[in-house]
Amino acid sequence: MSFVVKQTINIGVFDSGMGGLTVLKELIRLFPHAHYQYFGDTARLPYGSKSVETVAKYAKSSARFLQSQGADLLVVACNTATALALGPIKDALRIPVIGVVEPGASRASEVSHSRKVAVIATEATVSSHAYQRALKKRGIQTREKACPLFVPLVEEGWTEHSVTRQVAEIYLNELFADDSETDVLLLGCTHYPLLSALLRQLTPPRVAIVDSAESTAAAVVQHFKKNKTLSQSQNSLPKLSFFATDSVEKFQRIGERFLGQHIEEVKLVQLKS
Amino acid sequence: MSFVVKQTINIGVFDSGMGGLTVLKELIRLFPHAHYQYFGDTARLPYGSKSVETVAKYAKSSARFLQSQGADLLVVACNTATALALGPIKDALRIPVIGVVEPGASRASEVSHSRKVAVIATEATVSSHAYQRALKKRGIQTREKACPLFVPLVEEGWTEHSVTRQVAEIYLNELFADDSETDVLLLGCTHYPLLSALLRQLTPPRVAIVDSAESTAAAVVQHFKKNKTLSQSQNSLPKLSFFATDSVEKFQRIGERFLGQHIEEVKLVQLKS
Repeated sequence: MSFVVKQTINIGVFDSGMGGLTVLKELIRLFPHAHYQYFGDTARLPYGSKSVETVAKYAKSSARFLQSQGADLLVVACNTATALALGPIKDALRIPVIGVVEPGASRASEVSHSRKVAVIATEATVSSHAYQRALKKRGIQTREKACPLFVPLVEEGWTEHSVTRQVAEIYLNELFADDSETDVLLLGCTHYPLLSALLRQLTPPRVAIVDSAESTAAAVVQHFKKNKTLSQSQNSLPKLSFFATDSVEKFQRIGERFLGQHIEEVKLVQLKS
Repeated sequence: MSFVVKQTINIGVFDSGMGGLTVLKELIRLFPHAHYQYFGDTARLPYGSKSVETVAKYAKSSARFLQSQGADLLVVACNTATALALGPIKDALRIPVIGVVEPGASRASEVSHSRKVAVIATEATVSSHAYQRALKKRGIQTREKACPLFVPLVEEGWTEHSVTRQVAEIYLNELFADDSETDVLLLGCTHYPLLSALLRQLTPPRVAIVDSAESTAAAVVQHFKKNKTLSQSQNSLPKLSFFATDSVEKFQRIGERFLGQHIEEVKLVQLKS
C-alpha cells in the first residue's frame, strides 16, 4: 500500500554515511510523495566504532542541520546514532524524531513466537544493548552479535561474494549453532539489508529476518497517518536532496547501490562541531 | 643496531588510529632511549576513505597538538595523512616532519632490481598516487592496489584467518597474476605489517616485502644521526605517552596488538577542529 501526502511534508533522513539510504529507499516506496533531505555525515563516519559522547556530539550537529533545512520530522536512519544518542538528539530538536531501534524491536516482537530474538549490528550498537533493552520491554530474550566485517564487505560491493558468505557463516554460526529456539534475526545495521539474500540462505528456515529499515519506514507512515497528514489525493513525485560532509563523488557512486536509483547531485556541507 | 640519545629527545608520532603503533614499535626497537608521545585521532578515523581537504584539516590539528606537547620531531605514522597532507602538515608546524611515504619508497628503490614495484594501501592513499610519484622520481614503475578489507580484518584480529588468506589471495592475484617482473611489494598502510607473515606466503618468492613502518623508523634514526644528537652513552628506558580523541579503552585493548607490548594508560584529548 502506498500513502499520499496531503500537504508537502519534508522528511529529514540522517545517517553517518550511506547505509541510511536503505531506509530512504523504503520510505520512498511506502511514502512516495514527500520531500526527502538525506544527510550523510561522511567526514566523521563510521560512528559504529566510536564512543557515546562522540556519537552524540556528531549526531546532534547533523540533526540540527536537517532541522534548519525545514524538516518536519527527522528519521535517524543510523542504528549507532539511535542506539547511543536518540535521547540527546530529541532534546536538541523541536521536531519529532524517529529512530530505527524501536520500530525494529516492535516488528521483531510482532513476528516472534518463541520470544527469542537474535540481533546483529555494529560493535557500538551491540555494546549499547539498545536493542536488548527495547526487546526486553516487550518480554523478549535477546542474543546480540557484533559483525564488524559486514559494513566494509558491503562497501567493497562483495554482497554475494564467497568471502562474505564465509564471514556470514562464522558470525551466524556463533548465534545459531547451539540454539534451536530463536525465531527472528533482526538486522540492526542499515548496511545489512544488502546482505539479506545471503543471510536468508544461511539462517535456519524457522528464523524470520526483520529489517529495521523496512520497520522504520512503516513507523514514519504510521506517524503521519496518526497525525492525519495523509490522504490519497496528491500525486507528485518525491523530491530528493542529498547532503554529505565529505567525498560527495564517492557518496554518489556507492550510494546508488543502497538507494537502488540514480543520485543526481550531492551537496557538500561543512559542520562546525 | 640500536642508537642512544645524547639529550632527551621527544618524538611525536601521529596516526588516525592505532596502525601507527607499528611505526612506534620499530622506533622503540631502533631508538629505545627517546620519549615518545603517540597521538591517535580515533574520533575521526579512518582517514583512508576521506577527501584531501578533510584529511589535511584533521591531520594539522592533530600534528599541532603533538607540537604543543613539546615534540622535537613529528612522525606522520599514517600513510593516508602523509599521502594527502604532508605539505600542509609541514607548513603548519615549526618542527621537522617525517612521513611514511618517502622512506618506504626509498627502501623499495634500494631493494628493487627490476625497477617494478607493487604498492598495496587504503583507497585514499592509492587515489592520491603519492607512492607512485615518490617511486617515479626514483625511476620505478608502480602498480597500486587498494585493499580496503585488510584494515577491518586486522582490527577484527583475524590476521591468520582463512578468510583473510582468501581476501589476500584475491587482492594479490590482481597484482601478480599477469606479472613476472615486479620484485617488491610495498606495504603502504601501517596496519599491514600485522599481515606480513600471511602476505609472505602468498607473494611470489622473487618479491621482497618492504614495510614502510620499518623504513620510517630507520629514517628517523638517520635524521638524528645526521644532526649528531645520537651517542652510545645514555641508557634510559623509552618513555611512552598515549593520547586518543575517542575510545581510550578500545585503543588500549587493540593497540597492544600493534605495539607488541602493554599500554599502561591512554589520555583522552578533545580537539577543537
